[in-house]
Amino acid sequence: MDLKEQAAAKALEYVESDMILGLGSGSTAAKFVELLGDKMKKSELTNIVGVSTSEGTEELAKNLSIPLSSLNEQEKIDLAIDGADEVDSELHLIKGLGRALLREKVTEIHAEKFICIVDESKIVKKLGTKGPLPVEIVPFAYQSHIRWMDSLDGCRAEHWLEEDGSPATTDNGNFLAKLWFDGGIDDPYILADMLSIRPGIVEHGLFLDMANIVVVAKEGGCEVLDRK
Amino acid sequence: MDLKEQAAAKALEYVESDMILGLGSGSTAAKFVELLGDKMKKSELTNIVGVSTSEGTEELAKNLSIPLSSLNEQEKIDLAIDGADEVDSELHLIKGLGRALLREKVTEIHAEKFICIVDESKIVKKLGTKGPLPVEIVPFAYQSHIRWMDSLDGCRAEHWLEEDGSPATTDNGNFLAKLWFDGGIDDPYILADMLSIRPGIVEHGLFLDMANIVVVAKEGGCEVLDRK
Repeated sequence: MDLKEQAAAKALEYVESDMILGLGSGSTAAKFVELLGDKMKKSELTNIVGVSTSEGTEELAKNLSIPLSSLNEQEKIDLAIDGADEVDSELHLIKGLGRALLREKVTEIHAEKFICIVDESKIVKKLGTKGPLPVEIVPFAYQSHIRWMDSLDGCRAEHWLEEDGSPATTDNGNFLAKLWFDGGIDDPYILADMLSIRPGIVEHGLFLDMANIVVVAKEGGCEVLDRK
Repeated sequence: MDLKEQAAAKALEYVESDMILGLGSGSTAAKFVELLGDKMKKSELTNIVGVSTSEGTEELAKNLSIPLSSLNEQEKIDLAIDGADEVDSELHLIKGLGRALLREKVTEIHAEKFICIVDESKIVKKLGTKGPLPVEIVPFAYQSHIRWMDSLDGCRAEHWLEEDGSPATTDNGNFLAKLWFDGGIDDPYILADMLSIRPGIVEHGLFLDMANIVVVAKEGGCEVLDRK
């Protein structure tokens, strides 16, 4: 088992029959969905309903015959499982380099418990030191949103483009930006508020105080971090 | 001249040649655009560039041969002129019942000066007492956004539907909700923050500390209110 699969297997221990599960996006979350599908096929878990966080995850779950619902029908999710791009010691996360940040955040705020599954390469001392912070923006006047983010203290903002030069888009039809911070993000709370309030910015990849548990897969086993 | 035209004519007095103008949406703003087009046709104003806040305004301006640009090209707008649904004594506004709240807000935060033009029927003692507050939401899991807003203190949230029962949509492809407050909105700052931070809510119709001047057309003349 590789590290991603180890983390996914550990998270599966928290799943019980009759649960409504938030199904994350990205390669680690996909491992979890696959393992979940296996267990359901063997009837070791029954009456599970999934709520997917991306069109990709929805397709994967359908192929594995996992019944799906949505937050239009479900008021509450028992447990959400998803990966992350960075995790700090407070269990704050950067998510969204798989482009699903908005749907992930909407889903995960409805979860009674949110378990984040990562391999140890995602652990950072400070958010924003490993890669960029993704931000979802409306296409209207998108260059003005990027200019404004680029003007923030210590921040370099770039329009996220596909290899062919076209704008990267989300399942919601919006554009994306990547924010780079020399030396990382000094105060993620302040940055999150500034981004949330700015018109034209739909959502950002800072997931603060959201993960209840982080499962970190390492050579030799999983470490389970609990939010105080 | 009806009241809307009177307000529009008063705002036109602030326009000078060579300005980049933010062009609002709705019936009062449309009056302004028409009067502007007239003045440009007579060459009483020259070298004006418009930045429109909706597809409707863009079409109107094109028909009047007003040159258009966008916030992708323009870093700053000299003067924005737009209507409002409600105006309180602090010059805080509710906007967006014409559905263009997001593009209007994005445009108007770039304006050095923002003049709001209304007739006296729009003046209220307290925001939210005359009509609903419009909110733009992402279609994904939209019922969960509406449920959450409906759970806010004193707030009744409804999904904005067309007469045929289909969801009302914006130029950005999003859905809309209407928030009704018995007795009006007690603290617009707190409400604005809560709505801004919530994932799935793209923008709300509270325009706080944004209008520099409000022109109020009344029987007998215009009153000009200046933000302190």
